[in-house]
Formats: sequence, C-alpha cells, structure tokens
Amino acid sequence: MRVAFHDQLNAIFVDLSLICGQVETAVNRATAALLSGDAAIAEEVISGDQAIDANRERVEDNAFELLSLQQPVAGDLRVLVSALRMVSELERMGDLSVHVAKIARLRVPHVAVPEPVRPTMEQMAEVAEDMVRRVTAIIIDRDVEAAIALGRDDEIMDQLRRRSFTELLSPQWEHGVEAAVDLALLGRYYERIADHAVSIANRVVFVVTGEQVSRLDV
Amino acid sequence: MRVAFHDQLNAIFVDLSLICGQVETAVNRATAALLSGDAAIAEEVISGDQAIDANRERVEDNAFELLSLQQPVAGDLRVLVSALRMVSELERMGDLSVHVAKIARLRVPHVAVPEPVRPTMEQMAEVAEDMVRRVTAIIIDRDVEAAIALGRDDEIMDQLRRRSFTELLSPQWEHGVEAAVDLALLGRYYERIADHAVSIANRVVFVVTGEQVSRLDV
Repeated sequence: MRVAFHDQLNAIFVDLSLICGQVETAVNRATAALLSGDAAIAEEVISGDQAIDANRERVEDNAFELLSLQQPVAGDLRVLVSALRMVSELERMGDLSVHVAKIARLRVPHVAVPEPVRPTMEQMAEVAEDMVRRVTAIIIDRDVEAAIALGRDDEIMDQLRRRSFTELLSPQWEHGVEAAVDLALLGRYYERIADHAVSIANRVVFVVTGEQVSRLDV
Repeated sequence: MRVAFHDQLNAIFVDLSLICGQVETAVNRATAALLSGDAAIAEEVISGDQAIDANRERVEDNAFELLSLQQPVAGDLRVLVSALRMVSELERMGDLSVHVAKIARLRVPHVAVPEPVRPTMEQMAEVAEDMVRRVTAIIIDRDVEAAIALGRDDEIMDQLRRRSFTELLSPQWEHGVEAAVDLALLGRYYERIADHAVSIANRVVFVVTGEQVSRLDV
C-alpha cells in the first residue's frame, strides 16, 4: 500500500515537472511573439494555455484521489498539499505568459517593445525563462541546493525591473505613453513568473526537508 | 472526535473571515493613502501587512495540525485544503494592498492619481473593497448564492479597467508617462484583488456544495 502510494505521489511530481516544461515553452514563445510582433505565435501561446489548465485538473484529480483513498499521514500529507499548491502556481505562470502574448498581439503589426529598451526586456524574459527551466529540474531531482540558489537569483529580476522603470520614466523617453504602460505591465508579468518560480522552488525544499526556506514561503 | 474536529474546522473559517476583514481594512486604507497622498496612512498599510502574514501562519499551523492529528476523510479533507488555499489568496490580497500603498508613498507629497481620472480609480477601489467585504460575509455564512453573485460582478471591474486604459491612452492625456504607468499598475492590483475575491467565493461554493463553480476555479 505505501509503496503504491509513493509511486503515485512520484507520478504527481513527474506530472508537475511536465507542466513546468509546458510553462517554460509558454514563456519562451510569448517572449518570441513579443519581440517579433508575431500574431501567430501569440495565438499559439494563448490557445496553448488550455493544455496547461487541463493538466492542472488532472494533477488535482490525482492528488485528491490519493488524499481520499490512501489517507496519507503527516509528512506525505504535507507533500500532497504542497503539490496542489505548486500546480496552482504553475497554472498562474501559464496565465502570465498569456498576458505577455496578449500585449504582443495587441500591438501587431508593430512590436510592443521599442528598440532602445529591448535589451532590458530581453534580459527579464531570459531570467524568467531560465528560472522556469531550472524549476523543472528542481522538481524532478528534488534538488534542495539548486532550489535555494534559485531564490537568491530573484534579486537579478528586481534589478532589471528597476532598470526598466528608469528607462521608461527617463526625460529622454520618446516612445509615448502606450509603450511605457506596456513595458510596465510586461515587467510586472515577468517578475510574477519569477516570483512563482521561487515559490515553487521553496516548496520543493519544504517537501524534501520538512523545513520552510522562510515561514513566508509556505 | 468528529464534533471536536468540526469545531476546529469552524474556528479556521472564523479565522479566515477575520483575515478577510483585515484585508478589507488594508484595501480601504491603501486607497485612502492613494487618493490623499498621505504617507502616514501608506506606512500603516505597509507595516500592517505583518499582522495578516502572522494570521496566515496561524491558520496554516492549525490546518496542518488538524490534518495530521485527525486525518480527516474525503469531504473534510477538501474543506481543509480549500481553507489552506483561501488563506494564501487572502495573504496575496494583503500584498496587493501594500503595492497600492507603495505607489501612494512614492508620489508623496503629490497624489499619484490625476484629478480627471480620479472617478475611475475611485470606482475600481470601491468595487474591490466591496467585493472583499462581501467575501468576509460569504465565508462566515457559507452563502453560496452570494458567492455566485460575486463572480458575476467581476465584469464591472473589467469594464472599469478598460475605461482606465481608454483614459490614460487618450490623445488628450496630459499627465505624462509616470502617472499613466502608476494608473496601469494600480488597475492591475485592484483587478487582482477582485480576482482573488471571486476565487475565494468560488472555493466557498465548493466547500458547501462539493461542486466547482467552474473547473477553472478549483
């Protein structure tokens, strides 16, 4: 019984890593749509989100089935509840990628990101995508060290966000209000994707060690 | 044993409604700080968020204790897991109020919201606060009808958000990039507060009926 339980629990974590891979693709494609002003790629991200939602439902169904049928004890229970929270966060990350893709689509045939501030936005997107990629591996390997390292890298995203604000609020800004508003919201979306990546990494630490990285990251 | 369990479960929902009341105050005070440019009120919201975080920890500890010691069965388990998710969302709503207060503080001694667009922002804030207030009652009374009604009112927030974009992207906009960026982010924060209120209301429906309002609102 317990062996079967742990097999099923493991299957849930494999599913989580697969969804994380889908989110990684969504972030990558949303960024491609954004930087190229490609409506077809944007549509692909927007319609592709259904697959992430469907997988989330499946993980939730499996987790609740395990909860109901096996009535796991304290430690396993916490792992299952953590998995439920992780899958909610992954779904949010998918939604945030859709928000990026929608801004891209809104500006077609133009590109939402003006040339001079493109490097900052590219870096934000790269950092976000890199964090999601690392979380996929962290979930599979239950890698506590890598998870803790991810949390430290969140500071890079904060710096990029500040740089982006400096750029768009500078007296030299000549791309108008609309582009500035787009960039501020895009920055917010990438920042939130990174926040969720850190949060998921912290949950992996909790799952493995039973300890919170911080009580704020339950 | 089961009676004690249900008393404890009920105590958790009372705690959730208390935190929801704290969030309501946070939204109210953050808006007051925003519309008056009052740094002291903004600081109060920012430092007051610790109390919400502390209460969240307490609810989580109680919920996990119940989970571990009483090993509740299917239905009760879902209620407890829902409670854990609700408290996470309430904490996020507190964080979003802090974001509003921080924009207010950043613009002191000025007011972040220019006079001509004040009505729209005031209405967004009112709708958000009203939704949080109604959620407090929905949690206490387990009121399914009120919960479903709340979900329908979310459309009002979407309309206000669109109106806000129309205002700040209009050719007549004369308040500069900074104010436009502030308004776009403020709109996002109030919209997310409303989203979380709807999500919590949907969880109450699930707790009472065992049915999802939509499979998307697990």
